[in-house]
Amino acid sequence: MNGAQALMRTLVEAGVEVCFTNPGTSEMHFVAALDAEPRMRAVLTLFEGVASGAADGYARMADKPAATLLHLGCGLGNALANLHNARKARVPLVNIVGDHASFHAPLDAPLQSDIDTVARNVSTWIRRSAGPAQVGQDAAEAVAASFGPPGQVATLILPADASWGDGGVRAAPVPRRAAPTPDAGRIGAIAQALAAGPKSALLLGGRALREGPLRAASQLAAHTGARLLAEVFPTRLERGAGLPPVERLAYLAELAGVQLAGLERLVLVDAKSPVSFFAYPGKASELVPPGCQVHTLAAFDEDVAAALAALVEAAGAAQTPPRLQAPRRPPRPRGKFTADKVCKAIGHLLPEGAIVVDEAQTSGLLLPLYTAGAPRHDLLTLTGGAIGQGLPNAVGAAIACPTRKVIALSGDGSALYTLQALWTMARERLDVVSIVFNNRAYAILNVELQRVGALGAAEKARAQFDLRTPPLDFVQLAQGQGVPAVRATDTEGFVRALEHALATPGPHLIEAVVPPTLTGLKLRLLPHLLQSLASLPQPLARALKRSLAP
Amino acid sequence: MNGAQALMRTLVEAGVEVCFTNPGTSEMHFVAALDAEPRMRAVLTLFEGVASGAADGYARMADKPAATLLHLGCGLGNALANLHNARKARVPLVNIVGDHASFHAPLDAPLQSDIDTVARNVSTWIRRSAGPAQVGQDAAEAVAASFGPPGQVATLILPADASWGDGGVRAAPVPRRAAPTPDAGRIGAIAQALAAGPKSALLLGGRALREGPLRAASQLAAHTGARLLAEVFPTRLERGAGLPPVERLAYLAELAGVQLAGLERLVLVDAKSPVSFFAYPGKASELVPPGCQVHTLAAFDEDVAAALAALVEAAGAAQTPPRLQAPRRPPRPRGKFTADKVCKAIGHLLPEGAIVVDEAQTSGLLLPLYTAGAPRHDLLTLTGGAIGQGLPNAVGAAIACPTRKVIALSGDGSALYTLQALWTMARERLDVVSIVFNNRAYAILNVELQRVGALGAAEKARAQFDLRTPPLDFVQLAQGQGVPAVRATDTEGFVRALEHALATPGPHLIEAVVPPTLTGLKLRLLPHLLQSLASLPQPLARALKRSLAP
Repeated sequence: MNGAQALMRTLVEAGVEVCFTNPGTSEMHFVAALDAEPRMRAVLTLFEGVASGAADGYARMADKPAATLLHLGCGLGNALANLHNARKARVPLVNIVGDHASFHAPLDAPLQSDIDTVARNVSTWIRRSAGPAQVGQDAAEAVAASFGPPGQVATLILPADASWGDGGVRAAPVPRRAAPTPDAGRIGAIAQALAAGPKSALLLGGRALREGPLRAASQLAAHTGARLLAEVFPTRLERGAGLPPVERLAYLAELAGVQLAGLERLVLVDAKSPVSFFAYPGKASELVPPGCQVHTLAAFDEDVAAALAALVEAAGAAQTPPRLQAPRRPPRPRGKFTADKVCKAIGHLLPEGAIVVDEAQTSGLLLPLYTAGAPRHDLLTLTGGAIGQGLPNAVGAAIACPTRKVIALSGDGSALYTLQALWTMARERLDVVSIVFNNRAYAILNVELQRVGALGAAEKARAQFDLRTPPLDFVQLAQGQGVPAVRATDTEGFVRALEHALATPGPHLIEAVVPPTLTGLKLRLLPHLLQSLASLPQPLARALKRSLAP
Repeated sequence: MNGAQALMRTLVEAGVEVCFTNPGTSEMHFVAALDAEPRMRAVLTLFEGVASGAADGYARMADKPAATLLHLGCGLGNALANLHNARKARVPLVNIVGDHASFHAPLDAPLQSDIDTVARNVSTWIRRSAGPAQVGQDAAEAVAASFGPPGQVATLILPADASWGDGGVRAAPVPRRAAPTPDAGRIGAIAQALAAGPKSALLLGGRALREGPLRAASQLAAHTGARLLAEVFPTRLERGAGLPPVERLAYLAELAGVQLAGLERLVLVDAKSPVSFFAYPGKASELVPPGCQVHTLAAFDEDVAAALAALVEAAGAAQTPPRLQAPRRPPRPRGKFTADKVCKAIGHLLPEGAIVVDEAQTSGLLLPLYTAGAPRHDLLTLTGGAIGQGLPNAVGAAIACPTRKVIALSGDGSALYTLQALWTMARERLDVVSIVFNNRAYAILNVELQRVGALGAAEKARAQFDLRTPPLDFVQLAQGQGVPAVRATDTEGFVRALEHALATPGPHLIEAVVPPTLTGLKLRLLPHLLQSLASLPQPLARALKRSLAP
């Protein structure tokens, strides 16, 4: 058995069943080892960023790692942005990065580069296999490391001679580290804090946004009067009719500030203390209101579900039923075609058990509102802010959950980063409906240009966000990769295209040609709107805020 | 003046006139500063790998740096593969990488990552601006550092508050470091070595492949009987009728070994001692024959032109005329459509002063043969081996040389890495003819699978190199980005499409649907062919070797 064969066998026996690949010469022996291992599915991608984004999406849905197969430092570089999203999602993921044979590396051949430095940006577990006899054990430890807790990107660098050399040894799975439960003292203190008054909120992130923890959090909210908030960009949010609803913090710090205003206690549950996405001149980056106490119920490496269950007990909320979302769908949209109508149509038609991957940026602002009472579904979002995540994530989610419909929403700008994902959708006949909002702009940047207060920006600056010339034709871009596609330019046309795509297995793309959602005018009105909100009665203000939150 | 404005002004005054951009929020003030600086051209790209590859191509042709504008660590990650190619090309390039404001960085916002570690893979000069007052001087030093010698990727990390803060100071250009001339002793020793006998060769790389140094090297060859060799993947090779021809080392080590066999003296001129591209089990990676002396005439940081001129004097070759390539073009190709016919058609039609960017992999094997006597042109190649270089390089070359025709050759696999380059070609109306060899395979990997001797590879392994399902349609992929495109499936159709594209300004794409060039059968015959070569008379063997070299 050579090193590559031992690696393949070890991965499979540790539960890794899928490898998203973009191999080169240094990975040939791993590729050759595929044929002897029917339990490993190899999914070819045409760009490494698709492989890493797919492995991220897979892990979010499968709760276990897929492997990537990448070609040296440059392949890892191409994969980096989506590995960053996976790192911020805290999902398990195992990179196999091929390298030159150990005796070749010192010769500085063209593809030679320092792989470790690149890996360090996204991985804390990095190992270079010393030889064929070590590869199996290295792989078993990589898988265990990827589980954390918290989940992480583990990078195994595989020199070609460690791969092709004889003497490979299959290793048994390495036991995963258990997540500790927070101690009773901390639980008790938080229960007391929540009992102190209603100006409290639980901020849920990571694994706290799955059904079990959500129900416990909802019991606590119902019992104590605390509000339920979710981080801006959840890894995976289980939501819809029959599940507890949770209000996501807004991307725009101006809005998130309104959501958090007046809080006296904030309890973090697998979430970080909220900060603005970017910094702005003269504005605070930390969003917690002055004087608000911040408690950590469960840190990233702790057992979230156990912590919430213990808190329910300590707070005396065990008999309080959770508040569940009632079924509710928007009517079939009509009238002028806008991004909001697309979101409304999705809410109108979303099938039970769908997986929604949302990288729609400004165009998706009202999606959460319109899908709140739709049949239960999972929402995957842009955890690390590195665009180009949506379509690859959808590939991985579809492979993890072959019986569920995946709906991938993308902006035109975002879609172009990793559009090669469409080819893999076609090749693997994945049940993914990709919807590209084509507003012919990096619309979010027009908003941000205004927010950062950049002076002197005129025609040349604006041209940097303008995608009108030449217009991108996503129908051709999809068909050119084997994905059936249509363009929608009116509301009824879009609804019919979505009905068809949802009813027909296999990949589809719908290009929705829409105007930008968040215009300069709306943005200038925002502060006035926020002031009015502050003076409105609480329930009405809250409803309005929810409708504004992404 | 804020930091961004000081940066912009300093770059322009240091000679940086083009910035290839893919900005985000943290770079907004730099974007806003564009409007006050008419001397800076901002070229928007839809993916950072296009920006970095374009800056590389620009530098190869302009002999000075362009800037990139990248968005945090993830943007730099996306740019990394083509920055790697630029690093191996030893061209000057200045990365401007926006980062969060300094007070925002510790909060670990979603896009926060360690930019420095990523930069280290491609840059030795890395600096993080300390504030608006420092940015100007930092930029001036970055530009000077990028020139080396040798040319390098300089990375300036620009925190948003260093960009937006007042107190920016424009800095004067920093003098470039001069390249030292090798001392007379070394020159004299090499002159003596070359006089010792004809079994010598000069291996030319980097700047030695430009007209002046090539002519000097050719004088030396004519005078001493030494052969002229070029490294496998030149940064920029000036060639064609009226210039000295030079034999490139083959990518396949088996062939390069034949080219180098029998040499007793090898003189490196801005080139590394030759090594195989990848390592193979049981084969040596170093290609210099046993017993061959290796001399370094000019190292990467030395003055190549001066060193060659001094060697011409020392060797007494000053009166020897260089050997120049006679004009010669292949006839208009006819018959069965293959990749070779595409190369032949290019040789038949190549216009004077063209820039050929060759990332055609296996399909371009005979291109050097068919274009050897074409009108003089520049050839840019895959210096770092990281595919996805061709189309972006063509963007940069076209912007550096707006009056010259650029012909970009790409494999189907390679083209898919950075296909977004087509959009920038259309937007900027660049005079680029892109030719994609669509053999519906990672053909080179089928070859490599055999070369590495991977056992057990069958259907699953082969599927990793098979791009037939679904077939990529490059006509739609180009038209979807605003580039007029046609598909050629026969020789006459291709020739006519090329004639039309060369005669019509603006970007074009021709998809050439061809069978793979280097089949398994041909590969198995290779060792036999090589044995026969060894027994052939020298001139005939050399001619055959030349025809096989890439």
